[in-house]
Amino acid sequence: MSESPARPDGPLSALPAAELTAFHRAQEAAYAELRAAGLKLDLTRGKPAAAQLDLSDGLLTLPRGTTDSGGTDVRNYGGLEGLRDLRAIFAELLGTPVEQLVAGDNSSLVMMRSVLSYLWLHGGVTSERPWSAEEKVTFVCPVPGYDRHFTLLDWFGIDTVTVPMNDDGPDAEAIAELVAHDPTIKGMWLVPTYANPTGTITSPAVAERLASMPTAAPDFTIFWDNAYALHHLTEEETASADILGLAEAAGNPHRPIVFASTSKITYAGAGVGFLAASTDVVKWYTTHLGKGAIGPDKVNHLRHAQFFGSADGVRAHMVKHRELIAPKFDAVDRILTERLGGLGVAEWKVPVGGYFFSLDVLDGTAARVVQLAREAGIALTPAGASFPKGLDPRDRNIRLAPTFPPPEEVARAMEGVTTCVLLAAAEKLLDANG
Amino acid sequence: MSESPARPDGPLSALPAAELTAFHRAQEAAYAELRAAGLKLDLTRGKPAAAQLDLSDGLLTLPRGTTDSGGTDVRNYGGLEGLRDLRAIFAELLGTPVEQLVAGDNSSLVMMRSVLSYLWLHGGVTSERPWSAEEKVTFVCPVPGYDRHFTLLDWFGIDTVTVPMNDDGPDAEAIAELVAHDPTIKGMWLVPTYANPTGTITSPAVAERLASMPTAAPDFTIFWDNAYALHHLTEEETASADILGLAEAAGNPHRPIVFASTSKITYAGAGVGFLAASTDVVKWYTTHLGKGAIGPDKVNHLRHAQFFGSADGVRAHMVKHRELIAPKFDAVDRILTERLGGLGVAEWKVPVGGYFFSLDVLDGTAARVVQLAREAGIALTPAGASFPKGLDPRDRNIRLAPTFPPPEEVARAMEGVTTCVLLAAAEKLLDANG
Repeated sequence: MSESPARPDGPLSALPAAELTAFHRAQEAAYAELRAAGLKLDLTRGKPAAAQLDLSDGLLTLPRGTTDSGGTDVRNYGGLEGLRDLRAIFAELLGTPVEQLVAGDNSSLVMMRSVLSYLWLHGGVTSERPWSAEEKVTFVCPVPGYDRHFTLLDWFGIDTVTVPMNDDGPDAEAIAELVAHDPTIKGMWLVPTYANPTGTITSPAVAERLASMPTAAPDFTIFWDNAYALHHLTEEETASADILGLAEAAGNPHRPIVFASTSKITYAGAGVGFLAASTDVVKWYTTHLGKGAIGPDKVNHLRHAQFFGSADGVRAHMVKHRELIAPKFDAVDRILTERLGGLGVAEWKVPVGGYFFSLDVLDGTAARVVQLAREAGIALTPAGASFPKGLDPRDRNIRLAPTFPPPEEVARAMEGVTTCVLLAAAEKLLDANG
Repeated sequence: MSESPARPDGPLSALPAAELTAFHRAQEAAYAELRAAGLKLDLTRGKPAAAQLDLSDGLLTLPRGTTDSGGTDVRNYGGLEGLRDLRAIFAELLGTPVEQLVAGDNSSLVMMRSVLSYLWLHGGVTSERPWSAEEKVTFVCPVPGYDRHFTLLDWFGIDTVTVPMNDDGPDAEAIAELVAHDPTIKGMWLVPTYANPTGTITSPAVAERLASMPTAAPDFTIFWDNAYALHHLTEEETASADILGLAEAAGNPHRPIVFASTSKITYAGAGVGFLAASTDVVKWYTTHLGKGAIGPDKVNHLRHAQFFGSADGVRAHMVKHRELIAPKFDAVDRILTERLGGLGVAEWKVPVGGYFFSLDVLDGTAARVVQLAREAGIALTPAGASFPKGLDPRDRNIRLAPTFPPPEEVARAMEGVTTCVLLAAAEKLLDANG
């Protein structure tokens, strides 16, 4: 790539018309060069890199033996709640009593759909009827959020209402206002620690408000998807708010259901999913589970328990992940700052954990940026993906997932993305001027 | 146990009253002795024995490497249809094109519930509407059948209508008559090869009739649960009827959905489930699956593919299972014959495959036999379990599962069971006389 075109000193929108035109031309030239380079790069999905997966290859020759510490043969049927040895390790990490934690198969997403199915067909422990018997079911969705959460709601025909994701978590006052009066609002999604895609940490104060707020629906449920609870990008290892404890203290013990998994700790496709909730909700879950399942893969549970040995074993393992991926996040921030800082065409926060960067570009240009990038061989998550139905009302949010490609590809892709952001912004501003 | 009481020469019902009274007293004494022995034996569930699980312990140090033959990293996300290397092996065994076979997680039962969920909420490829939007949904259930199938129907609120299981499979004429006129009949269960619990093999002629019969419901679906397809108890390895091919030839390609698993081939809790169907139905399945799942445990798929190497590898493995469990089935038959043969108080067929003995005792005594056995420390599947809602209209069927206990325990348990059968029969006949 040739030298970047001259960089303005201040906001692009403040440029005189002639300079903006020249800037636009320069970006067109830079973009033409980018296309000519014939890249094939991908920042779409939050997938671990091969080097991260390698960290867990000790699993390949485990377990040693086939019985757990209680003498159960892990190869046979049974044990809906999962292997206690493994649950004990993750109960400590997730801050929940081991009796309230279930270990499942390889996907917490599958557990989320199961919970929704049980609620849909039978209702929960505080429900008056199955959710399918309600005239309408609505979920509160903090945005930007996780696209697969929204896909699940669509699949069930569940309606959505969005609230902003603030710096300390979802806008709890807005949520409290909504749920106080609307009995069709049955639940909400939340990725509490290192949110997807914003990286936001939900504060204990916000969590307490969500746990204690009065709700018109008796069975309002918080889907507390703590997928990144242990995925710190700095040495500060923020503990998640204790949503189960807060809900119990507030007299709403059955409100939250916690999900977690080792998908981004060990193997993305062959890890272990977890569910935690009140004792009654766990019983409700395993009862419905048992109507169509005999037990999870306990061999994989024992494999994981032996691989880690203890909660500290998991913590030490996560440091190795951090060492591999933190430089990629640093590269994204460095390139965004160098190329876009101060130009008033993009905003982002540097995440301190999780798997994503949430980039807000100039209103009305996100779809254009993604299109330009795609045509230049850089795959980005579709614009709007972080919103229900894929509709970002301001068309400004782009989710960047830098973990999977090698560091040099992350940098090259981000150079390209910033060129696309600048070109789209120049187009937009010229259009507004003209 | 002391010597058995004198054994009548012919049917118990033909005994003169005094002899029947003496026989009853002798059985009471035998039963008292049985209780005094303080047994703790279990013939309830179709679980592999530890020695069978040992056959697959090669899995514990597999896979070698982490990529499949196509170069896919099995550790990461993706691949809803499962690993092709493994699907190729089981496609050959199940007689289906590999493109029409999906490999899932550790349970075909879970796949059955998923299929029912998709049908319930969205309808299938030949449905006019979701099944939940029908006024009523009914399933045909050949009886005796598999209790977990009936539990699933209960969970969805699906009604049942029973048909007899004949020697060549379910009563196809009775089914054809039912489905021709009743559009609420949306599906049927069938364990086609070595049925649970009768061991019946569904003949190609019966399968053809089921595949081709006209149905009032356009989306009538055969849940072809081929759990024991490869579980031969003799050297004759009966091939299952080719239901997919028959249905396609009959112009009803989307009617059957085939399920299978390695739960009783490798590890009961850590095997691989399979689903096969028409290309359209497979696409329908993976599309709905993908709304709430990212992919199955492909590491376990690769582990299994390497462990077996080929379809012949699976066949050779199944011979080892047979060598372990056939003697247990022989013991059950031997003891039943010795102690009950010719007395007119029990009927059974010797299964040539599968996991169960289906024992029909004197009408109205099954529940009593199970109770007597339980009080003597021998756990049997509850009487009626092989019927929808657990209701056996003749109260005569008992499912015996001899695979799990060691051979000497199977024999001891069966000695006890036959004592209970004789005592219950004597009670019944005395009662009828008096």
